[in-house]
Amino acid sequence: MRIAISTGGGDAPGLNAVIRAIVLSAHTRGWQTYGIRRGFHGLLGEDGVMTLTPEKVRGITHLGGTILGTTNKGNPFRWIVNNPDGTQTEIDRSDDLVAAFHASGFDALITIGGDGSLKIGYDLYTKGIPVVGVPKTIDNDVVGTLSTFGFDTAVSTATEAIDKLHSTTESHERVMVVELMGRDAGWIALHSGIAASADVILIPEIAFDIEKVCEKVRQRERLGRHFTMVVVGEGAKPIGGEVQLIERRAAGTVDRLGGVGSLVAKAITERTGKETRSLVLGHLQRGGSPTTFDRLLGLRFGAAAVRAVADRDFGMMIGFNPPHLTRVPLNEVTGKSKHVPLDSDTVKTARELGIVLGD
Amino acid sequence: MRIAISTGGGDAPGLNAVIRAIVLSAHTRGWQTYGIRRGFHGLLGEDGVMTLTPEKVRGITHLGGTILGTTNKGNPFRWIVNNPDGTQTEIDRSDDLVAAFHASGFDALITIGGDGSLKIGYDLYTKGIPVVGVPKTIDNDVVGTLSTFGFDTAVSTATEAIDKLHSTTESHERVMVVELMGRDAGWIALHSGIAASADVILIPEIAFDIEKVCEKVRQRERLGRHFTMVVVGEGAKPIGGEVQLIERRAAGTVDRLGGVGSLVAKAITERTGKETRSLVLGHLQRGGSPTTFDRLLGLRFGAAAVRAVADRDFGMMIGFNPPHLTRVPLNEVTGKSKHVPLDSDTVKTARELGIVLGD
Amino acid sequence: MRIAISTGGGDAPGLNAVIRAIVLSAHTRGWQTYGIRRGFHGLLGEDGVMTLTPEKVRGITHLGGTILGTTNKGNPFRWIVNNPDGTQTEIDRSDDLVAAFHASGFDALITIGGDGSLKIGYDLYTKGIPVVGVPKTIDNDVVGTLSTFGFDTAVSTATEAIDKLHSTTESHERVMVVELMGRDAGWIALHSGIAASADVILIPEIAFDIEKVCEKVRQRERLGRHFTMVVVGEGAKPIGGEVQLIERRAAGTVDRLGGVGSLVAKAITERTGKETRSLVLGHLQRGGSPTTFDRLLGLRFGAAAVRAVADRDFGMMIGFNPPHLTRVPLNEVTGKSKHVPLDSDTVKTARELGIVLGD
Amino acid sequence: MRIAISTGGGDAPGLNAVIRAIVLSAHTRGWQTYGIRRGFHGLLGEDGVMTLTPEKVRGITHLGGTILGTTNKGNPFRWIVNNPDGTQTEIDRSDDLVAAFHASGFDALITIGGDGSLKIGYDLYTKGIPVVGVPKTIDNDVVGTLSTFGFDTAVSTATEAIDKLHSTTESHERVMVVELMGRDAGWIALHSGIAASADVILIPEIAFDIEKVCEKVRQRERLGRHFTMVVVGEGAKPIGGEVQLIERRAAGTVDRLGGVGSLVAKAITERTGKETRSLVLGHLQRGGSPTTFDRLLGLRFGAAAVRAVADRDFGMMIGFNPPHLTRVPLNEVTGKSKHVPLDSDTVKTARELGIVLGD
Repeated sequence: MRIAISTGGGDAPGLNAVIRAIVLSAHTRGWQTYGIRRGFHGLLGEDGVMTLTPEKVRGITHLGGTILGTTNKGNPFRWIVNNPDGTQTEIDRSDDLVAAFHASGFDALITIGGDGSLKIGYDLYTKGIPVVGVPKTIDNDVVGTLSTFGFDTAVSTATEAIDKLHSTTESHERVMVVELMGRDAGWIALHSGIAASADVILIPEIAFDIEKVCEKVRQRERLGRHFTMVVVGEGAKPIGGEVQLIERRAAGTVDRLGGVGSLVAKAITERTGKETRSLVLGHLQRGGSPTTFDRLLGLRFGAAAVRAVADRDFGMMIGFNPPHLTRVPLNEVTGKSKHVPLDSDTVKTARELGIVLGD
Repeated sequence: MRIAISTGGGDAPGLNAVIRAIVLSAHTRGWQTYGIRRGFHGLLGEDGVMTLTPEKVRGITHLGGTILGTTNKGNPFRWIVNNPDGTQTEIDRSDDLVAAFHASGFDALITIGGDGSLKIGYDLYTKGIPVVGVPKTIDNDVVGTLSTFGFDTAVSTATEAIDKLHSTTESHERVMVVELMGRDAGWIALHSGIAASADVILIPEIAFDIEKVCEKVRQRERLGRHFTMVVVGEGAKPIGGEVQLIERRAAGTVDRLGGVGSLVAKAITERTGKETRSLVLGHLQRGGSPTTFDRLLGLRFGAAAVRAVADRDFGMMIGFNPPHLTRVPLNEVTGKSKHVPLDSDTVKTARELGIVLGD
Repeated sequence: MRIAISTGGGDAPGLNAVIRAIVLSAHTRGWQTYGIRRGFHGLLGEDGVMTLTPEKVRGITHLGGTILGTTNKGNPFRWIVNNPDGTQTEIDRSDDLVAAFHASGFDALITIGGDGSLKIGYDLYTKGIPVVGVPKTIDNDVVGTLSTFGFDTAVSTATEAIDKLHSTTESHERVMVVELMGRDAGWIALHSGIAASADVILIPEIAFDIEKVCEKVRQRERLGRHFTMVVVGEGAKPIGGEVQLIERRAAGTVDRLGGVGSLVAKAITERTGKETRSLVLGHLQRGGSPTTFDRLLGLRFGAAAVRAVADRDFGMMIGFNPPHLTRVPLNEVTGKSKHVPLDSDTVKTARELGIVLGD
Repeated sequence: MRIAISTGGGDAPGLNAVIRAIVLSAHTRGWQTYGIRRGFHGLLGEDGVMTLTPEKVRGITHLGGTILGTTNKGNPFRWIVNNPDGTQTEIDRSDDLVAAFHASGFDALITIGGDGSLKIGYDLYTKGIPVVGVPKTIDNDVVGTLSTFGFDTAVSTATEAIDKLHSTTESHERVMVVELMGRDAGWIALHSGIAASADVILIPEIAFDIEKVCEKVRQRERLGRHFTMVVVGEGAKPIGGEVQLIERRAAGTVDRLGGVGSLVAKAITERTGKETRSLVLGHLQRGGSPTTFDRLLGLRFGAAAVRAVADRDFGMMIGFNPPHLTRVPLNEVTGKSKHVPLDSDTVKTARELGIVLGD
């Protein structure tokens, strides 16, 4: 049996753990594994395929990044071709990919990715490639799994950062606004904000009233607490979606520095007169050695994916639904996004601890 | 409403997070909270009760230990009295405790503890005290909850320690045996052993054949891997339960230094001739700042316990059964112990990664 | 003997260690200690003075921030008064401070601060206050001492951050530009850049040629290393000091987000076509628990300051000039700044490791 | 120019950083580097020599251990030969080594080691090998250098461990005795003990009176501090050197578990009646990723050693005597041991903080 592995999209700590577990689990069964470099460029471009052996994955469990490389520009259904005149054209190369897959003699594809990559995985499955998916994103927004690997590490990195900022924010008597990742889901902001004793947490799932935020700042002043820690998920939106913010957000990747965090900071200064600083944690959340939790989860995911291959149970995604790892049909998880439920005990906990959620 | 809090048994990181969440959640509802010092000594002895306020629990989420103190010697049903002649007598002071509880005007008791303390909590509940339990143990052996707070921190500490030992074990070409906590359950050893790339993991749930362990050492030698990392849960037993080990274990707390780890190390040296070192990680696993995961779990547990009090849902333990926190009757969880299921995906993962489990 | 303590300026991890050592060392001698709150506001404003006891400094060694609070707005020689009409006036209140100091019955003042605070300390000394100074800054730019406390922690935090960014930068094949603190000295950037295997380090002491930076990026591409890690000290300047940068820098605290790091990133993208991201580490470098090195250095500084008071050796700053702690006259250290010597072995090491310094 | 590298003796974090800096610095000059495997076994045994290139040392700065392997059994002057009858003979193979060195065409040897390895290096230098030494030991007992790489990491690991034990020791109201490494020097115990707020620190340089230790325990009880943290260097000795301890110590490596720490713990329990636990931190201190300080120091040491080779300045050891790296004749540093000076400010600091040193 020859298993190919592909990874796509943004980094998530634990990716190398998944790869190592696939390689070792396959090796235990006497099977071979091959890593497609940089998304699908290894099959469609010139990057090639890497034969994976136990030696090659030695000691990688604790390394961030991925030994295969990754890319956001490798959708075979929308392959970007650079034209001689400098323009770009998008073409469908999925048939080429299917052909290259079979020509390489592969028996199965394990694709590790977030929403986008899993969708590609499902579409390849419908075209005849035996696919098993593994959910990967620090944002934790994939449905069909309680959590994704990388999420615990991102939350831990964010919590440590807020901790570090806490002491200096308090001694300088400021308001600090920390903008965290998570796209349109508030998981990272909510979990790290609670764990790090934030005073305000703004998440995409709850449109916020900036005046509620400012009232918390003022209330703390009155109680002799001359500092306030505000945590903002990058996708958080004010009630009514003020024009300025929407325009800024539309700029998207062009100008991450002027995100919702800096707008919230500016608004707080204007309305309360308090000295306010903001910080965008950015790619720190994607990098670094995975936590013990994510190492174990990644290893379990990898081994479970090979078990699915052994069972010839294709078109499925491995899900972490404790106490078990489960298999969920890929077409039930793609095109959706898992949000923080507003009636969850975590949201209740935040409110009961006195944290303002902006509503 | 006046809520009393008691904690008993060994430390678990996250205990202060639970306490802080109870205090703040109660405060949000306009209720008072009181901490009984050192198990039940605060009510039955001279240690007293500590009025808890938001100020008193400020900044304690990330601190190890417990601001209330703890003790293993505070079972009101088996209270130890020091007699004038130097001997000790065990008496039942549970009625005194119930009386003291009511005399103090408390409306509810939240007891945070492991198996033993939860049993005491249930017995007090049957005597009329409105009790809510919160499961606490680094060993993760409480039934009715997927995990306890403190477990993730203990596993992380153990994983980091094995990581540190790995590099020096490899460069010195030795066998290293690390003995971990967990009592009669193998959760800490199994999870940290997999995450830290151990070669052998011995857990109480699987009686081990020392020859299988030695064969792994020899096999690695043959493959040019001149070192082996062996992780042993403190409750692990050889097949047939060799007399020597049983006698040593019987000594229990008297001589933790000569536990199963040192016996395994000695046996490996005798049978393979390899230089072997052993290390008992000990109380390092109980201490330190909780991981982000345990901080959040502790805070959620505390808030959920106050919610149960608000619902007057007594005689229950809060359980972490994701995605929800649930309530489980105390009498269904006490007197039992949660073991690693041998058919779990985690055990399968270990085997598929090539880790020897001793059988 | 009654000793007053003041701290001023930006936070540096280890500040609480200094305070604890002063309090305990004085206590051992039977002396009292008092903390002036928020710079000199405790004597000139309404913030008051805090009696410090061994109990009050228990467990603070490992905490970031300062239990006394701090401020950048507390120079008694240039005290800012808010006028009724909304304007501000700057007046000299140093005589008031001297009077308040004596009225409080203090026998000595230990002032913990960077360049600015030490200058104030010296000026107060010339006005008759018995002052001992302790150097504090994460920037390590105080002369008369090999290093200041807080510097090792800031370098460690920066190194960890660059490490985290490294893995994701590599797997996404980008250029990453990290802007670090240090004002007009390159200590943090140079030390963390070398320790974290940066490819380019730009420091204020060496005006950089952006083309040299881009050439390194291109050279790495040719060698198959499709990513580059660039570390920039916030005070770094291009050769000739391009107008745009100078204007941006002039904005100073107003817009920290558009510092030299983002300009360097933009220039690299324009000249090499590589996808480039930038990140400003900001206040993360000032916060958090001090490293073991800084804890010990802070404790040694505090104890040495009390020893200077015991010797009535005033007008001096404690210096770390290993293997000894020394005393340096305050007037020899103020008004100067310690820069990275261009012929130091550290700079040579960077070059010999193949790191581009921009010249 | 062809440079050979050898490492000997116990691991010290930062070793790979030294190796990487040697390789890159030599590469920058157009020279080749070769790693002798496992001490001198690579030249005298069958382990061989490893050609080192920039690719081979990529990403190793932060790894513990050494990519060359190490051994305590590789003194060419006292080479151990296994006889056919099972006995061992010690012979002088230094001439063989010199011959092998020259036959390999090496121009210089950089030897990285502690006291023992540096002595071997010096002896080889007198036999005509152009040697440069780099001091390596976590114990910090090499003369001619303020500190060795690995020391800061060992102190940090020890401090973190004591921190973790602190919280659980306090909540369980025990005495905790932690035994640390350091051989006959007290550097690790003293530095980590102060940084981690130990109550008692016992170091080899100060013979201790166990009654002084017990008196501290009792005094703390009287002050309501029902726990005590005792840090003991492995070479600490009681006044008069009690027979029992000396005998135990004579056993040396045979029985590390029954070191001075367990004896101190036993004595405290007997004399004070307090529940006491002891823990031997052991090899945790030798392993793991080096601190930022040790990474930088290791890199500087490696680059400086190549600079000494470039200057043909042989028979010298690189020393860290800030602000400079210096060169010290090897024969001035071997055969000696650097101890904690009893009049150093660090010892004074410990006493002034109220820490009992046993005298």
